[in-house]
Amino acid sequence: MIQIAILGYGVVGSGVAEVCRMNRDIIRQRAGEDIQIKKILDIRDFPEDPYADRFTHDPADIFLDPDISVVVEAIGGAGIAYELSRQALNHHKHVVTSNKELVATFGPELMLLARTNGVSYMFEASVGGGIPIIRPLHKCLSANVIQTISGILNGTTNYILTRMEQSGIDFNTALLEAQTLGYAEQNPTADISGLDSCRKIAILSSITFSEFIDYRLIYTEGISGITAEDIVWARRLDCKIKLLGCFRRQDEQTADLIVAPMLLPRRNPIAVADDVYNAIRVEGNALGEAMFYGRGAGRLPTASAVVADVIECVMHINRVPHLVPWIKKERQIVLTHADCPVSALIRLSREISRPAIENAFAGASLDWLDDPEGCEWAVIAGNDGRLTEGALGEALKSCDGAVISRIRTFQNISQF
Amino acid sequence: MIQIAILGYGVVGSGVAEVCRMNRDIIRQRAGEDIQIKKILDIRDFPEDPYADRFTHDPADIFLDPDISVVVEAIGGAGIAYELSRQALNHHKHVVTSNKELVATFGPELMLLARTNGVSYMFEASVGGGIPIIRPLHKCLSANVIQTISGILNGTTNYILTRMEQSGIDFNTALLEAQTLGYAEQNPTADISGLDSCRKIAILSSITFSEFIDYRLIYTEGISGITAEDIVWARRLDCKIKLLGCFRRQDEQTADLIVAPMLLPRRNPIAVADDVYNAIRVEGNALGEAMFYGRGAGRLPTASAVVADVIECVMHINRVPHLVPWIKKERQIVLTHADCPVSALIRLSREISRPAIENAFAGASLDWLDDPEGCEWAVIAGNDGRLTEGALGEALKSCDGAVISRIRTFQNISQF
Repeated sequence: MIQIAILGYGVVGSGVAEVCRMNRDIIRQRAGEDIQIKKILDIRDFPEDPYADRFTHDPADIFLDPDISVVVEAIGGAGIAYELSRQALNHHKHVVTSNKELVATFGPELMLLARTNGVSYMFEASVGGGIPIIRPLHKCLSANVIQTISGILNGTTNYILTRMEQSGIDFNTALLEAQTLGYAEQNPTADISGLDSCRKIAILSSITFSEFIDYRLIYTEGISGITAEDIVWARRLDCKIKLLGCFRRQDEQTADLIVAPMLLPRRNPIAVADDVYNAIRVEGNALGEAMFYGRGAGRLPTASAVVADVIECVMHINRVPHLVPWIKKERQIVLTHADCPVSALIRLSREISRPAIENAFAGASLDWLDDPEGCEWAVIAGNDGRLTEGALGEALKSCDGAVISRIRTFQNISQF
Repeated sequence: MIQIAILGYGVVGSGVAEVCRMNRDIIRQRAGEDIQIKKILDIRDFPEDPYADRFTHDPADIFLDPDISVVVEAIGGAGIAYELSRQALNHHKHVVTSNKELVATFGPELMLLARTNGVSYMFEASVGGGIPIIRPLHKCLSANVIQTISGILNGTTNYILTRMEQSGIDFNTALLEAQTLGYAEQNPTADISGLDSCRKIAILSSITFSEFIDYRLIYTEGISGITAEDIVWARRLDCKIKLLGCFRRQDEQTADLIVAPMLLPRRNPIAVADDVYNAIRVEGNALGEAMFYGRGAGRLPTASAVVADVIECVMHINRVPHLVPWIKKERQIVLTHADCPVSALIRLSREISRPAIENAFAGASLDWLDDPEGCEWAVIAGNDGRLTEGALGEALKSCDGAVISRIRTFQNISQF
């Protein structure tokens, strides 16, 4: 029998306990051992819980207990969770987490600390919730140079955009609805601003480089500026607007990374993911493309990925685990944002003249669209792949107050 | 440095050599060691090949070479490939394969033999080509009771059905086209008859049960009976016709398994897979659903999955590998076909009267469809989930010569 501990008894922590209970037989069969929760750390007490007798307020009860070999960190954030993860690893406990903030911030240090102590630091659940993506990238696609990763990595924003698209409601109404249904938190900033997606694409990109890519260097734009009119334009172009995280390897040294709402052709397989679903497309130089799709969050899906990592740890108890920690180098992998290629739908008011716009975009490829209502200019800039973010920014600046919106396109949109 | 050997230098074998060559750096980085191909077994010689000096016609050159630790079996079939895989394992070589026929036929024996000899027998590439599915099922979803697996598992038949749907051409024309493009073999029987999909769904199902499920017990129907008129009916129902392999767990003991062409609603995520693409949907009791999508075959995608398994073996050299071999029990997991629930679109000629049909289906749920051309009866039988395959067979028999076609539905089709 293997004994484990859970740090933090919130959504994920209590989900882990529930999965261990409901799937005890299959877990024993897979792990080759019974897995038992010996201790749970939380500042609160849960007198009605089936595990009520196992709660403690003192982390030492867990770290000094030689019977406990695996610790699930389900606290969240990069404060106390960081401190306790370090302590657990230093006490030779395997640590499993779904905490993307912690992995994206202190991943290299924690992985190295795990290796030094002969244990594992595992985080399959940190991206895509229950959808397998970390291990497939690590293991199944290990014979590929990964060229691109692109996907819908955040369920909350995907729900909001789906509702705006399907019902024509505006952003604030859709957000309120998501909060009422429990799909968005009361403080939804990390989701809405793109920060959550940014941390996740940084984690996936770090795996492909086996090198730390700092999420704070990734250009990130949220969805709060998307209007009902933008959605109407998307439909005219046979597109959906999705918040995408994108990684594109340029060479051995650099990659183009961005998180932003983008126009995505409806026929693109990623576009199949609506509501709270995630879809992650990976392209490798031998593989071609593969896509992973499913519910990217939720209590039990996320918990089931955490428990799968626990099972993996149990199977490696007393064996040096094999993981390739991310090296932290001084060089900067993330390409300077201004130098990245871009194409985008630009909507402008008719206060500005068409020649003035052409002048502002000085030689960039412009595909003009018909506005059926004739009240604004709409143009796709950069379809030839030669426009940079820097040049786009300059052009928009010269159009001054006339710009209504600018939404990037995921692929060339050339079907009109 | 780790030295490996390849048995069989056909499509997959030569692809493995190419992937090892083109991605040497990343493979070294992942495996922690250089991987070198020391010997290649084939009855032919390849004097122009970059590896020309490494060919041998004698398996003993490989099995008796203590420097070779991993053997890639890329011969195919369950004859000589079986014999040589046994010998390799008995000589304590790890064996990696993409050979679904061999895994589906002799999997339990080879896995046990590997365990006895302290090595691994790995087969990620046997299902889904380069799409990660075997390891995700084994590892990432290990904390779930897998309830269903359903998917498009064969690229050749998917290409043919896609072409029939998009161009209105008939089966034979589409097959010829697939052969011309190299998507179908000159003897396409294993694909067309559903046998290839059947072996793959048997492999996936065996993983979920950790128990051998014999593919020869799975009811399997191919696509050669699908007509252009069937495709027209599918479109009327806002469906596509796809060859699906389906596994549905009934309880601890039994599962409902089938391979057959089925009507699949276009809005179902699996339906996004057209042409030679595969899509595999997995449902777990904690996870909910996840889907894996990509090119299911092809030289380099398949080879990249084989090489990923080789890397995994290299990382486990001299360590007892952890795999859960499939137990071979006497009990029969596969539910008797006649007892399985079914719903289907039935097309009948107007030679038979509607009351006669209702009589034949004695009490089963029947949803009558309008034939715009008024020349035939079309009815969905079993939408209430209470029709069995046995009862359906009996009913069709009583309608005698009037049946034009019978195509199963993947889900209840109730949107009309």
